[in-house]
Amino acid sequence: MRATVMYGAGDVRVENVPDPIVKEPTDAIVRVTRACICGSDLWPYQSMPHKDGGRRMGHEFIGVVEDVGSDVSGLQRGDVVVAPFVWADNTCDFCREGLQTSCRHGGGWGAPGVDAGQGEAVRVPQAQGTLVKLPVAEDAALMPSLLTLSDVFCTGHHGVVTAGVGPGSSVTVIGDGAVGLCAVLAAKRLGAEQIILNGRHKVRTDLGREFGATDVVAERGDEAVAKIRELTGGDGTHAVIECVGTEPSVATALEAVRAGGRVSRLGVSQYTQVPMGFGTFFRNVTLTGGVAPARAYIEELMPDVLDGTIEPGRVFDRTIGLDETPDGYRAMADREALKVLIEP
Amino acid sequence: MRATVMYGAGDVRVENVPDPIVKEPTDAIVRVTRACICGSDLWPYQSMPHKDGGRRMGHEFIGVVEDVGSDVSGLQRGDVVVAPFVWADNTCDFCREGLQTSCRHGGGWGAPGVDAGQGEAVRVPQAQGTLVKLPVAEDAALMPSLLTLSDVFCTGHHGVVTAGVGPGSSVTVIGDGAVGLCAVLAAKRLGAEQIILNGRHKVRTDLGREFGATDVVAERGDEAVAKIRELTGGDGTHAVIECVGTEPSVATALEAVRAGGRVSRLGVSQYTQVPMGFGTFFRNVTLTGGVAPARAYIEELMPDVLDGTIEPGRVFDRTIGLDETPDGYRAMADREALKVLIEP
Repeated sequence: MRATVMYGAGDVRVENVPDPIVKEPTDAIVRVTRACICGSDLWPYQSMPHKDGGRRMGHEFIGVVEDVGSDVSGLQRGDVVVAPFVWADNTCDFCREGLQTSCRHGGGWGAPGVDAGQGEAVRVPQAQGTLVKLPVAEDAALMPSLLTLSDVFCTGHHGVVTAGVGPGSSVTVIGDGAVGLCAVLAAKRLGAEQIILNGRHKVRTDLGREFGATDVVAERGDEAVAKIRELTGGDGTHAVIECVGTEPSVATALEAVRAGGRVSRLGVSQYTQVPMGFGTFFRNVTLTGGVAPARAYIEELMPDVLDGTIEPGRVFDRTIGLDETPDGYRAMADREALKVLIEP
Repeated sequence: MRATVMYGAGDVRVENVPDPIVKEPTDAIVRVTRACICGSDLWPYQSMPHKDGGRRMGHEFIGVVEDVGSDVSGLQRGDVVVAPFVWADNTCDFCREGLQTSCRHGGGWGAPGVDAGQGEAVRVPQAQGTLVKLPVAEDAALMPSLLTLSDVFCTGHHGVVTAGVGPGSSVTVIGDGAVGLCAVLAAKRLGAEQIILNGRHKVRTDLGREFGATDVVAERGDEAVAKIRELTGGDGTHAVIECVGTEPSVATALEAVRAGGRVSRLGVSQYTQVPMGFGTFFRNVTLTGGVAPARAYIEELMPDVLDGTIEPGRVFDRTIGLDETPDGYRAMADREALKVLIEP
């Protein structure tokens, strides 16, 4: 089959790789019908050292079950399924606590010996725990929004949940990428009253307004903090969702949050330290969030997608075939495209 | 009257200062009957540059109301009261949220123009919001434990509350000072099942065991992390309460916490950065806590002190008169005394 392999920064190829087969009794084979490129894929796209043999890419996909191992129940050939962006048994203590990203028997797509989402098919380990059936046909119009349950909308939701967003909350979302926009939508869905989107790309912030942003702040750093404070009577917002992953972005988040408030970080950390000295100590600022256990949220969020209450799939602004994937990476890295959907 | 003034590192004096009088209608005058020295007082004792005129010291005290301003209701001459370690109106939005340390009309003891606790008397701003009446006589045997409601036991409680400790939790407490020991007691009170005390001073860790510690780890740094993991099946504890305030201590805390767990920091931060890079991001570690809004907890904790269920006052191992206060600082700095109680 064909699959996407990254060999280093800027070097993404679609190549022939072995067809997946059931290796473990807990495996399933899924033919991928929709996949996409994640903002987090751009970090290695910009910086990965050359790797012989490359690294299989993609951790968001929907597909159709082709085969299941003998220990897999509840799934059968022909089921349309969505995969969260890590695989997990969904039964261990971490999974039961809703932290499938720390599953004792789980792991990441594209790890050695494991397929990844940007390809024609995937061997899914721990398939029974990992995959969630979708009650729709494989060509349903809702596919883009359902695909966001694999990662990006669940990630936005994780941010607002861990930041304690609820009815009446004020929220700042830092970053107008797909995760940031999904965080806006998730905050709106949970009843946030004021949602300040910090971003400077008008097409994106316009979509952010449609998703529920009440204010847009285009500045960065101290100027952004000043604007956010101005919009909140000097206090900052109860919650800040950090959707970039750089140290300046985290610093802005920690300054923009109200005393007693929470900063949730969703952007994959490209830093090793965060500036949490006496100022944040005295203001009782909490830093929370992290990699989102999408699996924990899929069932809860799916009904709102199915009935059209929310349309997170609007973050996709380009659809390509599998062979065009390298250009999809380039388009996202060049900010030509917000988020690219792949139809293998 | 006599009061404690710090002029710089190692330079603590008890001096004559003006007698306090009601200046604002919201003031009360309190004659101090019990005060104490805080571990956080040791930071300036070790490092404060010389300051002309000095800085009034002490933020923990119990006393008897001598006079009240015209706007103060609910308090009268003769009432025995405890003061939390910042003063606050207890009515603003932050106070109503239980964050009296960020009160819009509050402030710190010893700030310019404000008295402090290590003296014969104190003008208490925002007295009605700040002071809590104690249903005991001024010479009650329970005074040491009641005095801990001013700061140190409420601070330990703040740590375990913000860290989400509850029945069955596993908790690590880093630091065997008075705050650490109070955090152990507070964790036990809230039902924690495993409480690992990280400290190396046997007299203190012995008291920690009496307060509820199930394990004591004397190592520091990576060795402490290894021991804590060994005691928890490799996982670390759900909660870690950081009661030191140095960067190595925070680093240990962040490594000793279980995935999805919370580190609450209580030690006044002597650092500007914390090491929260990809490791903590991937493990969904939360950093919370901060300066404790003691006022929010006093009424809740007082009954358990009054009926003897808890005896946090056992952290006091030396009682001195006001004039001996400089030696009290020295004794705590030299670790001769755990926590010093002052009877002015």
